Amino acid sequence: MRVHIIGAGLLGTSLGLALTRRGHAVTLDDASPTVRRLAADMGAGRADDPEAPDVVVVATPPDVAGETIVGALRRWPRATVTDVASVKGAILERVRAAATGPELDRYIGCHPMAGREKSGAAAARADLFAARPWVICSDADTPPERLDEVIALARDAGGSVVHLDPDFHDSSVARVSHAPQVLATLLAARLRAMPAEGIALAGQGLRDTTRIAASDPGLWTQILAGNAAEVRAVLAEVRADLDEVIAALGLGPGALAVIAGALTAGNEGHERIPGKHGAAPTKYADVTVFLDDRPGTLARLFADIGELGINVEDIRMEHATGIKLGSVEVAVLPAAQAALEEGLAERGWWIPAAALSEEPAREPRRAGGAGAQPADADSAPQPQQAQHAAQHAGEGAP
Amino acid sequence: MRVHIIGAGLLGTSLGLALTRRGHAVTLDDASPTVRRLAADMGAGRADDPEAPDVVVVATPPDVAGETIVGALRRWPRATVTDVASVKGAILERVRAAATGPELDRYIGCHPMAGREKSGAAAARADLFAARPWVICSDADTPPERLDEVIALARDAGGSVVHLDPDFHDSSVARVSHAPQVLATLLAARLRAMPAEGIALAGQGLRDTTRIAASDPGLWTQILAGNAAEVRAVLAEVRADLDEVIAALGLGPGALAVIAGALTAGNEGHERIPGKHGAAPTKYADVTVFLDDRPGTLARLFADIGELGINVEDIRMEHATGIKLGSVEVAVLPAAQAALEEGLAERGWWIPAAALSEEPAREPRRAGGAGAQPADADSAPQPQQAQHAAQHAGEGAP
Repeated sequence: MRVHIIGAGLLGTSLGLALTRRGHAVTLDDASPTVRRLAADMGAGRADDPEAPDVVVVATPPDVAGETIVGALRRWPRATVTDVASVKGAILERVRAAATGPELDRYIGCHPMAGREKSGAAAARADLFAARPWVICSDADTPPERLDEVIALARDAGGSVVHLDPDFHDSSVARVSHAPQVLATLLAARLRAMPAEGIALAGQGLRDTTRIAASDPGLWTQILAGNAAEVRAVLAEVRADLDEVIAALGLGPGALAVIAGALTAGNEGHERIPGKHGAAPTKYADVTVFLDDRPGTLARLFADIGELGINVEDIRMEHATGIKLGSVEVAVLPAAQAALEEGLAERGWWIPAAALSEEPAREPRRAGGAGAQPADADSAPQPQQAQHAAQHAGEGAP
Repeated sequence: MRVHIIGAGLLGTSLGLALTRRGHAVTLDDASPTVRRLAADMGAGRADDPEAPDVVVVATPPDVAGETIVGALRRWPRATVTDVASVKGAILERVRAAATGPELDRYIGCHPMAGREKSGAAAARADLFAARPWVICSDADTPPERLDEVIALARDAGGSVVHLDPDFHDSSVARVSHAPQVLATLLAARLRAMPAEGIALAGQGLRDTTRIAASDPGLWTQILAGNAAEVRAVLAEVRADLDEVIAALGLGPGALAVIAGALTAGNEGHERIPGKHGAAPTKYADVTVFLDDRPGTLARLFADIGELGINVEDIRMEHATGIKLGSVEVAVLPAAQAALEEGLAERGWWIPAAALSEEPAREPRRAGGAGAQPADADSAPQPQQAQHAAQHAGEGAP
């Protein structure tokens, strides 16, 4: 296919890289000649103006996507025109307001659910869309051959095609993406005036809940404004719940039931988030491994896990304040948990769960005399990792 | 030391395990005889009532911690008494209201910043406190020898000691822990009524912002109620900001400046969160590696990273909906980024950044003829991982 991409930012340049690798003839345009040339030099396509592209992809900032789509429909009267903006209803409205019926049939809105905290052509990657949902918003009037072109483009970029109604798309992303961005942002803003000694108490929970607060304000202003009505509706629901929690924290009659109810509702909502690969939510078993912070430690750990033939579903590294020591939570299928714990413990890794599971077989502690040294003070496994841990912990205390 | 622990839940049992391993003579009590026996059988200490413990640690649920502390001060008139509850001001008030001056001098409140999403003795681990901040709230009247005992206990449990005023502690944890819990909970609750097709669009952002929404409602009701005034104050600030954003989403005059201002404030707050090991926030460089989902792939990857002698600062696995394919973001110090990218690419890993960085040295694309196959369609590296990726991506599209 001859594909013309308008807008050589993170998404446009990444798409150009991916489609070029798949053998498509990609041309690029950008409001900035420098950016256009950078994207071309990176291998995302040629910086040419095409005569007759098969597909035009509008990858501009969302606030100019509507008029750019209309312009592309006029300029290339045989091309299929699509876009990658993260809001769909407002853009479709603008196109409907300006385009004729035959022009409208050539427009098919898309939203690849991909992005990074970095932006611009220089952050582009050919794999940006790989394995991500690629939402296509066609309707009953969409000619099948044009829909096929857009599906082929999405698949060749590596995306996993999902067909959705534009309004359903917008209300869904308001909940799973836009409202989370606003709440992470508001939460992080509360840290601005805190003394550093207080922020030092932050754990993984704060890091996770505020990670996306680092996102680009310029882009997100456009995204939120472009989906304002839907985001506003979700945030109004959150505010109503927040008001209830704030009132309950006055600790009047019935307050604890309100707080517990809110927490339980949060549990229920969280359980609905799909697991890896879009499967039903899966409960993985976490195996914690304690390790010091030196090159090669993770390599030895994963080499040992590989030798055990166990597939790792997820990894989480946990860091601590003040000392060079950490732990890794390795998530595996529950059926593999015991084998992983035992296998790693045998190889000398410090696996608290494995050490604990040996205990019930020993003589119960309650039979010991008062003041006696517990039997396992010396007999407990003391692998190299555990000794490092104890040394570091002692050094780290102020 | 002779240490008596009251309350054999996650924290009490974990503390018993850690102190027993360090050679202390630990005894345990719990309102449930079964739980007490379980903790003893796990090796967390003897299920005995001690005559004269040196230190008594109250590790009950927070809502009964105050009265349990007062009871312990009376029952063991020479012991130092401490607790591990996550709120400090309210408990100190209760102890002050009930205890005499000499009794009060023997109480030193603590808060080890440790926990899990699981609770109960069965989830205990000897390393729970390792490398975590352990807050000690002493005051000018605290006898130094009693403070030393509590410091020794905290360090032997593996904690990193931090001295804080109780009120400062409570207002800090309201911001870095309790308010984030409430907002994650409210956000997750919004997913309850969503169609599954909408939730399927969830990405890593939603998973991160709502992870702690899975926490135990019973425990968190007590924590929030125990720090109600401080949490309420933070949430009222969040509500004021939220009201501004909701109003701005009406898109009246000046709306975009309000939204952009909120997002920028979130950036600023996020930048204040300390980096790994409590150091100043560090900007790590992310290297993305694309891989398929089979046992041993991660092992090979980390073995290769280990051979390159590069220290991994953090790992993030990203999963996709619908297909068995993922990527790993490996965070390293910026100085190590180029060596890691080049080294892994040489070993056949699919590193988009390394592939891209080769491009500028080649012939610029814009010199090619219209419609020509891009030069790198065949010459780009095609390692095994990349081929797997493309195959899976194609299979995964519906």
